Amino acid sequence: MARIPVVQNILSANAALASDVRGRLDASGVFALNMMASPGAGKTSFITATIRALGDSLRVAYVDGDIETTIDAERIDALGVPVVQINTGGACHLDANMLSLALPQLPLDQVDLLIVENVGNLVCPAEFELGTHLNVLIASIPEGADKPYKYPTMYRGVDVLIVNKIDLLPYVPFDLGYFKRGVEVLSPGLTTFEVSCTTGDGIQAWVAWLKERVTHGSPR
Amino acid sequence: MARIPVVQNILSANAALASDVRGRLDASGVFALNMMASPGAGKTSFITATIRALGDSLRVAYVDGDIETTIDAERIDALGVPVVQINTGGACHLDANMLSLALPQLPLDQVDLLIVENVGNLVCPAEFELGTHLNVLIASIPEGADKPYKYPTMYRGVDVLIVNKIDLLPYVPFDLGYFKRGVEVLSPGLTTFEVSCTTGDGIQAWVAWLKERVTHGSPR
Repeated sequence: MARIPVVQNILSANAALASDVRGRLDASGVFALNMMASPGAGKTSFITATIRALGDSLRVAYVDGDIETTIDAERIDALGVPVVQINTGGACHLDANMLSLALPQLPLDQVDLLIVENVGNLVCPAEFELGTHLNVLIASIPEGADKPYKYPTMYRGVDVLIVNKIDLLPYVPFDLGYFKRGVEVLSPGLTTFEVSCTTGDGIQAWVAWLKERVTHGSPR
Repeated sequence: MARIPVVQNILSANAALASDVRGRLDASGVFALNMMASPGAGKTSFITATIRALGDSLRVAYVDGDIETTIDAERIDALGVPVVQINTGGACHLDANMLSLALPQLPLDQVDLLIVENVGNLVCPAEFELGTHLNVLIASIPEGADKPYKYPTMYRGVDVLIVNKIDLLPYVPFDLGYFKRGVEVLSPGLTTFEVSCTTGDGIQAWVAWLKERVTHGSPR
């Protein structure tokens, strides 16, 4: 039987491009994050809080992936960091080629930390590595505690987990133990930060950890 | 220049299958809903509340689309309605072929209303019609008010909008006016219900409207 391995070819072409992106980032001394989440988990608010808490300690740049609009890019642009908008025109995830095309628009030699905000989606972005150093998943309390079980590919491929909107715990049914057991099965020992971008809880701990990673490298 | 219209061919093959599904549903007198939402917007809770509120007034069946797991299907199965689980095995949306394969597993002649729960995703399900009569989008307050602007394809293709978790309005920043203006641009006059599955607010109004549509037909 003849088989046409379209998906496999797409993914291996993407992996080659991701490797090229990584090389270019490393050559410029840029540490990069791929921020992924469901729509509305608070990616942009969390990135805003991160950039504010970093202050002058790291030079940050930002790439925003969205299907349409520049709403998120404008929010980050207001913080005064270099911003590149990628509009995927319907595509449900970023891929390494898109990031590769964005890099020349950034002053990489003056950047320590590149934050890439992926399209809001718990499924497709997990399949496409970008060449970044860490995959960061932002979960949020109102999404419900069953998400690790229902979106295992995403939870399996992640390096850091942010549990956002922790201030809403009193108002929604969310079994934190059930959530954490699901995460532990898929990503044993996963580094996790519980935060609220509304109250600021947990942001300093995350930023201290991030600065350590950026400064001393050692991506896994 | 040679162009390979892969996506267009996939969508027209899907449309032909959707038309076949619709014919089979209509022949059995089944009215069908395609429930779409971001992960964690509360699709399964809303479907549970709907089935409970319908009581004996309509005979309901349920098809659950998920990447993996049977968590949602088990929740609905506990209500005593016929349930079929579709596991897409990684695919980020249902398509008409999957629903076509599910229909023979259901006693369609004893069903008035078929509720299909799509994979949690605000992007890809919007592209694949299933042959159902109404596309229902469930938004939720914690997602934020900018979602119509950021996921316009989904908001454009929808017949009914449910704004869920309305009980969380006091606890999260959500500009309802901004949200509604975005919806109005994309889907003028869209039928909208504001509900809370926690408090029960709005469920009766939705169910009364739904019963009217199922009983008197008139899908647009």
